[in-house]
Amino acid sequence: MAEANANLLKLPGSYLFAEIAKRVRAFTQAHPDADIIRLGIGDVTQPLCPAVIQAMRDAVDEMARAETFKGYGPDYGYAFLVDAIRAGDYAPLGVDLAFDEVFISDGSKCDVANFQELFSAESRVAVTDPVYPVYVDTNAMAGRAGELTPQGRWQGLVYLPCHAENGFVPALPERPVDIIYLCYPNNPTGTTLTRGQLQQWVDYARDTGAVILYDAAYRAYITRAGIPRSIYEIAGADKVAVEFCSFSKTAGFTGTRCAYTVVPHAVAVGDGSGGKVELNALWKRRQSTKFNGVAYPVQRGAAAVYTPQGRAQTQATVAYYMENARIIRDALAARGVTVFGGVDAPYIWMRTPAGLDSWAFFDYLLESLHIVGTPGAGFGPSGEGYFRLTAFNTLALTRRAAERFAKLP
Amino acid sequence: MAEANANLLKLPGSYLFAEIAKRVRAFTQAHPDADIIRLGIGDVTQPLCPAVIQAMRDAVDEMARAETFKGYGPDYGYAFLVDAIRAGDYAPLGVDLAFDEVFISDGSKCDVANFQELFSAESRVAVTDPVYPVYVDTNAMAGRAGELTPQGRWQGLVYLPCHAENGFVPALPERPVDIIYLCYPNNPTGTTLTRGQLQQWVDYARDTGAVILYDAAYRAYITRAGIPRSIYEIAGADKVAVEFCSFSKTAGFTGTRCAYTVVPHAVAVGDGSGGKVELNALWKRRQSTKFNGVAYPVQRGAAAVYTPQGRAQTQATVAYYMENARIIRDALAARGVTVFGGVDAPYIWMRTPAGLDSWAFFDYLLESLHIVGTPGAGFGPSGEGYFRLTAFNTLALTRRAAERFAKLP
Repeated sequence: MAEANANLLKLPGSYLFAEIAKRVRAFTQAHPDADIIRLGIGDVTQPLCPAVIQAMRDAVDEMARAETFKGYGPDYGYAFLVDAIRAGDYAPLGVDLAFDEVFISDGSKCDVANFQELFSAESRVAVTDPVYPVYVDTNAMAGRAGELTPQGRWQGLVYLPCHAENGFVPALPERPVDIIYLCYPNNPTGTTLTRGQLQQWVDYARDTGAVILYDAAYRAYITRAGIPRSIYEIAGADKVAVEFCSFSKTAGFTGTRCAYTVVPHAVAVGDGSGGKVELNALWKRRQSTKFNGVAYPVQRGAAAVYTPQGRAQTQATVAYYMENARIIRDALAARGVTVFGGVDAPYIWMRTPAGLDSWAFFDYLLESLHIVGTPGAGFGPSGEGYFRLTAFNTLALTRRAAERFAKLP
Repeated sequence: MAEANANLLKLPGSYLFAEIAKRVRAFTQAHPDADIIRLGIGDVTQPLCPAVIQAMRDAVDEMARAETFKGYGPDYGYAFLVDAIRAGDYAPLGVDLAFDEVFISDGSKCDVANFQELFSAESRVAVTDPVYPVYVDTNAMAGRAGELTPQGRWQGLVYLPCHAENGFVPALPERPVDIIYLCYPNNPTGTTLTRGQLQQWVDYARDTGAVILYDAAYRAYITRAGIPRSIYEIAGADKVAVEFCSFSKTAGFTGTRCAYTVVPHAVAVGDGSGGKVELNALWKRRQSTKFNGVAYPVQRGAAAVYTPQGRAQTQATVAYYMENARIIRDALAARGVTVFGGVDAPYIWMRTPAGLDSWAFFDYLLESLHIVGTPGAGFGPSGEGYFRLTAFNTLALTRRAAERFAKLP
């Protein structure tokens, strides 16, 4: 008889955002007239920019004629997009990537979820705490997390607490690990690492043979000079790190779906018999077996982000969201709330006021101010006592939310 | 130190179509003027139909305005598409699917590759032989296939030979299995099962607790009355079968990427402690954790397939390809070649002539007739002595290929 993957059954029933949706639904059913403002989930509100729209229109028209129709694309993405990424995102940083080190996909969530398949089931995994839940859940599903404690920690994972007391800088792990998930600018805390702090992690990985899975989905939101936009700005990172990037937040592609992952040839892992094998080769095999590429019009749209018009238009939208972030930060600070992030990231990470725990503050915000945010505890035990707000709503609604924050206790 | 997934390292280096591409590339470099006709890989050549193009244009325009912009979509697909599938593909067959039994994705290859994650690593897997390589490779990557023998068989899999001698009807497995992959109309043989033959499999699964993973990607090509278009036309299948369908071959979406998978609530597997768990719930958890939905314009395009215009236009394209199939069948039969498939499927499965093995015939066809096909042995040991041709090229090139077949020995 067929049996389920026992690791899947260990997962708690409800994903964070499903629980939030449930509470919001219950509230709106009870209060249908409530004017709710959503500063919770990280979805964008501004339309695709004109350069992207035009490129997608043209590509759809190409699909209408036999002479220009596109069937299956190259497994790892069209050259026009791969080359635009190399020239547009990496060359300006002094990072020279080979053509076959860049892999186009339909989302960073998918890639970051699937990448763990390349490693042995016995690999020891380190995650920051709080953390984007996908890193944890996908490793739990693969059997690397062991059992879930009543406190919400997986016994098999190594957690790296990040909180105000350590400046949200994770300490190097106390016991050996093989895979390290880092996300900067960070979701959910909105904080960044300096070059020096990131260099420590690269050096640690080099010294121990660990691999860093670096999620840079929010790099477009960095405003301060000197903050690394790619881990490959750090010496030696090309030998120990894989980097995940996305058009979702850079160019509003949450409903359009395009991302890319960089897997340098120099990143290798043990092959079980004393040799080494490139992760690049393993990812190629994984993707060509389980994935069939991204829609041609979508790849054309993504490539348009790198045109002068596309660059200016997407940067203007990022600036729009960052003005929202400033408004939220200022409104909270005016009430004496301690605020982090929101300077190099679209996320504002606040201390919950009045000693409320993070789900209690969620309920308070929803019921009293009709604002939806995300409880810090949903991102891990060290998120307790914190709360995440996002800058992705419209300017008008963000201003209205800021007015409501004046009523915070 | 990080270690690779040892199961990934067991996979042979080169995927079938990569090896074909390599040989074709070598030949064209040596003979740059050769007029090669491709009847190999199953990619379509006809453009998206006008109804789909118009829907995608309109959807791209929606993405350009804040009022109609779409960010993250529903995890399992937009209701407009799910409902179109239920009403358009299943209601006419007398199959009533619940809304949440249909899951939209970016490709059947992805879904059929990922679905095995829901089962225990110890599950025993049966595949037909010859077979679409993805079923085999993804189970090998998950550790269910054991070791690869020099003969190209995985010791841990149960192979169900399909050849002319048994009418390409797989016999029920002789030892117990938990997961059974069936694909009808079949890739690569182009053959189908009758209702009675499929009923035997459903009954077997019911009696043994096995789950059937049914790949119906080519259902639009069925021309004969009475051939089941969905496994759910068979009594009891809703309790034992998951069905994978795609817009790739139905509507030319190989470069546009949309598919769907049906997971009935009644299909359950053991939970390891004497109870049962729905595969539907496990697939929901898997998809919401590792996948982020399909591009909105693509889902709008797929839904347009179900409009009266879209239906007529896509059916006309299918008929165009099936005329190609007839031309290929007739040309081969005129040379005394034994031919299967090509009546209810876009694939023609031929005996290799003159006692050539299937890779030798590949080389002969390429070098002598400048035609690219797919060696049967690439689909499994029982494919030896057979060769696959596809009906997806243009009518003009298919006719030219048919003229060349007159020179077959």
